[in-house]
Amino acid sequence: MAEENTVFIGNKPVTAYVMACVTQFNRDADSIVLKARGRAISRAVDVAEVLRRRFMKDRVDVTDIQIDTEQIETREGNLSNVSAIEITITKL
Amino acid sequence: MAEENTVFIGNKPVTAYVMACVTQFNRDADSIVLKARGRAISRAVDVAEVLRRRFMKDRVDVTDIQIDTEQIETREGNLSNVSAIEITITKL
Repeated sequence: MAEENTVFIGNKPVTAYVMACVTQFNRDADSIVLKARGRAISRAVDVAEVLRRRFMKDRVDVTDIQIDTEQIETREGNLSNVSAIEITITKL
Repeated sequence: MAEENTVFIGNKPVTAYVMACVTQFNRDADSIVLKARGRAISRAVDVAEVLRRRFMKDRVDVTDIQIDTEQIETREGNLSNVSAIEITITKL
């Protein structure tokens, strides 16, 4: 249930993730969590800002932002630390 | 006074900003605001995480995170939107 409302931010254009969020909100999601790691973090902030200021202006807002450190396995099999962000966007 | 405790995150290595924060905390700052725009946003998250999990472990924590959109003037003189983040780190 919770996973349903999660949008993982990767290397696609910002608009692709904005559209994924709009679709989920139109399917009756009350809130969505944007998750990103490493360099995609700034794109997650872009998605949140474009949503609340343009595509869903006055209809959604950012209600929580958490940052964390995650361990990922590199191609060589070593563990590496990477920063992560979770931005919660909620219908008003 | 408020500006004193602001650290602007740019293109330097993460450690440079971590050291700037440690210096400010040692000079009796109770809290520091990390400010970053665009692609530097993920570096700001790195700085916050390295501070609270390594260099100042159990001594500081993230107490607030705000995101925003700012307008900047391009080299051609046009206005362009850029996402921004402010991360507040506070002594425990």
